[in-house]
Amino acid sequence: MAIRVFITGGTFDKDYDEIRGELRFHETHLPELLDQGRARLDINFRTLMMVDSLELTDDDRDLIARSCARAEEDLIVVTHGTDTMVDTARVLADRATGKTIVLTGAMIPFAFGSSDGLFNLGSALSFVQVLPHGVYVAMNGRYFNWDNVRKNRDTGVFEEIRPENT
Amino acid sequence: MAIRVFITGGTFDKDYDEIRGELRFHETHLPELLDQGRARLDINFRTLMMVDSLELTDDDRDLIARSCARAEEDLIVVTHGTDTMVDTARVLADRATGKTIVLTGAMIPFAFGSSDGLFNLGSALSFVQVLPHGVYVAMNGRYFNWDNVRKNRDTGVFEEIRPENT
Amino acid sequence: MAIRVFITGGTFDKDYDEIRGELRFHETHLPELLDQGRARLDINFRTLMMVDSLELTDDDRDLIARSCARAEEDLIVVTHGTDTMVDTARVLADRATGKTIVLTGAMIPFAFGSSDGLFNLGSALSFVQVLPHGVYVAMNGRYFNWDNVRKNRDTGVFEEIRPENT
Amino acid sequence: MAIRVFITGGTFDKDYDEIRGELRFHETHLPELLDQGRARLDINFRTLMMVDSLELTDDDRDLIARSCARAEEDLIVVTHGTDTMVDTARVLADRATGKTIVLTGAMIPFAFGSSDGLFNLGSALSFVQVLPHGVYVAMNGRYFNWDNVRKNRDTGVFEEIRPENT
Repeated sequence: MAIRVFITGGTFDKDYDEIRGELRFHETHLPELLDQGRARLDINFRTLMMVDSLELTDDDRDLIARSCARAEEDLIVVTHGTDTMVDTARVLADRATGKTIVLTGAMIPFAFGSSDGLFNLGSALSFVQVLPHGVYVAMNGRYFNWDNVRKNRDTGVFEEIRPENT
Repeated sequence: MAIRVFITGGTFDKDYDEIRGELRFHETHLPELLDQGRARLDINFRTLMMVDSLELTDDDRDLIARSCARAEEDLIVVTHGTDTMVDTARVLADRATGKTIVLTGAMIPFAFGSSDGLFNLGSALSFVQVLPHGVYVAMNGRYFNWDNVRKNRDTGVFEEIRPENT
Repeated sequence: MAIRVFITGGTFDKDYDEIRGELRFHETHLPELLDQGRARLDINFRTLMMVDSLELTDDDRDLIARSCARAEEDLIVVTHGTDTMVDTARVLADRATGKTIVLTGAMIPFAFGSSDGLFNLGSALSFVQVLPHGVYVAMNGRYFNWDNVRKNRDTGVFEEIRPENT
Repeated sequence: MAIRVFITGGTFDKDYDEIRGELRFHETHLPELLDQGRARLDINFRTLMMVDSLELTDDDRDLIARSCARAEEDLIVVTHGTDTMVDTARVLADRATGKTIVLTGAMIPFAFGSSDGLFNLGSALSFVQVLPHGVYVAMNGRYFNWDNVRKNRDTGVFEEIRPENT
């Protein structure tokens, strides 16, 4: 079961620039995470962009959607900033049908010791192997259908819009 | 979806005893792992034992099987040493039917910075939510049916006994 | 040998605010660092402020100088942002005589796994115990007299202004 | 000021062998530690042996003493297991005169996230630059003369034999 991972940036991949004293993107930490998790999956990954999800444009989302649609793999994980992850999920639901697509990210950069990124990646890579076709968000150890999830901006936690659907 | 986690020890939970200069068990790191992963799952956990899986007795496995069978929850994750994880899976398959049980562990103690434990826990907690009833091993980002998995002792990697079944 | 530590902020103590997705100050990590280093020193510490050193005002420096002058201890370590550490050292050299004062900081926040903070703290606490009275900067495993040091902003490394003095 | 570092093993450099599930020596972490500390010191290091200090033989100590005596550098740091660090210090005091030699180690392997190794290395490299000729142990943020120090085996803390000398 080949899995494609598309990298788009987000907190997950943020680094600390010690000369400027600020957070910035350098390159993806995905290979380190897969090594640390001792993953033995057939994964191809490609970095589509490296941006804060608040700065993602329609063109960026278009590129993500086209990339998902054109990928040979049916199983796709997209790493993404959490702030607009749900918006991108909606675009993918319209345009990348017939696949299982799981978006995930992190609240804390992987470069920090206490990141949730490794947990979330383990979770997303597992959900994508067993969920039926559709577009999902995997955060907080759970999965959500793309049309029933929002990020609670006060708590940083993902939750259903209509809890009864869980 | 309530999930029960049973702790049995294994590398996952090993600590370093700085006075004696050796590895030993203290108490489970599960709550720290769930915090770090920002898990928002309905989890009850209980420590059944804290042992190296090479030292697990038939009585220990009996306790694990009875605990799984009696648990109110249908979804169960068992943290376990990797060396005999498959042996315990076999016992559970006989005795704890009608549930989804996922065994996981770690190659590197969580107390080490480079542990695979957080990845594996994210993976196991995800698989248990979506796999049909049965007993599984979740390691290396994959899941295996209890009757088609072995640990390769040379590489430390879990693999199918009959690869065609994947 | 009692040592006073004054905390002023700087990269050393920056945390990641996962709700806002940015670096900010919360509270000092000094106690964690001393625990991790298993320090058995007679240390009293006080947080004077928690600011980026580029934002330190004359009033702030006045407070640091008065605090050093009034401290009962002769041995003082000041944790400080690296960008203006040398400026504060100059103020202290004028106003806090008869003491050994060592300023230190970090290029990477302690909250990141790869921080230099623990190394620098071990270094500063050691230098302060053995250097003669005066004001020093301890960074990069070295100590510098306050009047012969600058931070190289391109490399992030501290160096002598006049190398022959080393 | 050139500094020579001799590596002899000890907890400091222990790794976790994930195939065997036990602690063992692989190779020294010193370069990683110096990188993380952003050390800009003129350091030459050599690994003399990689052993638990309880297993150090008279021949091993002889090699350490000869290496210190023959080194071109006057400033020497020796990384060493803590259990018999004091015994080696005594041998060096007899045989490597006219130099400043600082022994240090760690209670927790550097490979563990919570190691004291980086703190101790920062401390030892600082003390060695400023202490007069002699043989010292640097642990717990302090330095001890070779003839007035012991490791308290109950607490793991180094302490003076005659406290009044501090």
